[in-house]
Amino acid sequence: MGFDAGTLVYDDRGLLPVIAQEEGTGEVLMLAWMNAEAVARTIETGRATYWSRSRAEFWIKGETSGHVQELVELRIDCDRDCLLAVVRQVGPACHTNRKTCFYTGIRDGQEVELMKPIA
Amino acid sequence: MGFDAGTLVYDDRGLLPVIAQEEGTGEVLMLAWMNAEAVARTIETGRATYWSRSRAEFWIKGETSGHVQELVELRIDCDRDCLLAVVRQVGPACHTNRKTCFYTGIRDGQEVELMKPIA
Repeated sequence: MGFDAGTLVYDDRGLLPVIAQEEGTGEVLMLAWMNAEAVARTIETGRATYWSRSRAEFWIKGETSGHVQELVELRIDCDRDCLLAVVRQVGPACHTNRKTCFYTGIRDGQEVELMKPIA
Repeated sequence: MGFDAGTLVYDDRGLLPVIAQEEGTGEVLMLAWMNAEAVARTIETGRATYWSRSRAEFWIKGETSGHVQELVELRIDCDRDCLLAVVRQVGPACHTNRKTCFYTGIRDGQEVELMKPIA
């Protein structure tokens, strides 16, 4: 039987968290949200398509910036309430122009900037 | 000024998603949830401590199974509403006895088991 996005477990807003990980390096780039339709569109188009909670609309990652995510593989976790998207990331993933959104580390009780924006 | 877990952005349940990633391999192991107190306890103890939504209690990962996660570094994303925990994982991370919770891939429209439980 084929995969059906409706069989995943969504929260009370109809969303589940999706971790984007870069193919090859394994670097975790960002976390965003999908509803069932976004999951289906991502698989159909091969482009990571999220649901923007702030704008309440579909958000094809990189549609305006060009920093798209080409889907390599979508993986489901054991509880079926979270996805891992292995992607080829074009340009920086973060809107701050850094490769990853996780650029702040907590070291010795202080916040430390781990990487600068790409010039 | 020192890091304050209260400055992170939590959802209406007081939680944020935390991605656990294995040090060295970069493998994404699981996603779980923390409240501000769990964030503080994780940093203080060096052991990943989540908030169990189903049991509504703190959950020191591996406390009963022995499959603990020693914290290497906690990172904050650009929106401050998600964390990445780089960890040293003892044993399998998943309760199904697999190394990672993301053991199901979607390939050619079918769900495929990517790894078996550890014998």
